[in-house]
Amino acid sequence: MRQKPTVLARAIVATSRLFRVEELQLRFTNGVERTYERLVGTGSGYGAVMVVALIDDQHALLVEEYCAGTDDYQLSLPKGLIEPGEDVLVAANRELKEEAGYGAHQLEYLTELSLSPGYMTQKIQVVLARDLYPKRLPGDEPEPMRVERVNLRELSALVRHAQFSEGRALAALYLARDLLVQRGVLVL
Amino acid sequence: MRQKPTVLARAIVATSRLFRVEELQLRFTNGVERTYERLVGTGSGYGAVMVVALIDDQHALLVEEYCAGTDDYQLSLPKGLIEPGEDVLVAANRELKEEAGYGAHQLEYLTELSLSPGYMTQKIQVVLARDLYPKRLPGDEPEPMRVERVNLRELSALVRHAQFSEGRALAALYLARDLLVQRGVLVL
Repeated sequence: MRQKPTVLARAIVATSRLFRVEELQLRFTNGVERTYERLVGTGSGYGAVMVVALIDDQHALLVEEYCAGTDDYQLSLPKGLIEPGEDVLVAANRELKEEAGYGAHQLEYLTELSLSPGYMTQKIQVVLARDLYPKRLPGDEPEPMRVERVNLRELSALVRHAQFSEGRALAALYLARDLLVQRGVLVL
Repeated sequence: MRQKPTVLARAIVATSRLFRVEELQLRFTNGVERTYERLVGTGSGYGAVMVVALIDDQHALLVEEYCAGTDDYQLSLPKGLIEPGEDVLVAANRELKEEAGYGAHQLEYLTELSLSPGYMTQKIQVVLARDLYPKRLPGDEPEPMRVERVNLRELSALVRHAQFSEGRALAALYLARDLLVQRGVLVL
């Protein structure tokens, strides 16, 4: 990998309850200097988890939630912040119970995805959940989430659904699908 | 779709050169009231574009760039802001020329992806570029980007690459792959 630019100065230039913006003065190895900004978390710092939960060998669960960013109800994967000291798989199972009303007997770590690495520090851990059973835990959601199913063989159609748009959730679904195909569980 | 929560109050609570945070007081239809925060753009408001550029029927171009968010050099798709009044496909071709040193004779709009719809307004347009030719345009990058190729048949291995992590770029690559398979151009 290339030698990283030198950080000449850094400062927090904006803060809110959830967000913090850091300004960086950088000098690249070719001598060019630039001012960058990046979003750094104000959360627990333990990261976040996203769950591809298989209700059968072909279908994953989606939850419908009001999204303030896009100001509409969107379908996405169950997800949330990992609590201090909480294991990633335990966090995944907890979020699945809180948001979708299911627990999983089998939990498997898939990968880590970044949000927008140029501008944001945020990363999310992707977990595959199988062998589900009904189990609801109370969460911090303002209202119950409606649960839907998506057929893993129809992911390219999912982006045409007016209520689905989240890139990293789609990536997680595709990764899970690839894995199931490689293992011979799913045939496309 | 459900009835959206009522916005009781809204205010900009933090601003920087690139970011702006809006606080929303919401009342859900069940009467529950909550304070939300979301990131709203300070850019041109014309959005952004991300390009899956095929150098042949199996390989797409990746560019390596210093990412301040993750503080490392990451591989991702060529992408950037759409300029005021600029057509999405024209913007895609311009970014491809600036970042990867190629133009495309064929450009095709694929879809729109959101970043984190719960907390951010940002969306990005995904464009498939084919029939490439060498063409470099000067961009605003601080240093030239290294260009790599990824085999579309090996996307699930890409997330194990230490320099690749971006969820929405992976989603865009999978969507392009699905389309090529459906058209019989690519066999997995």
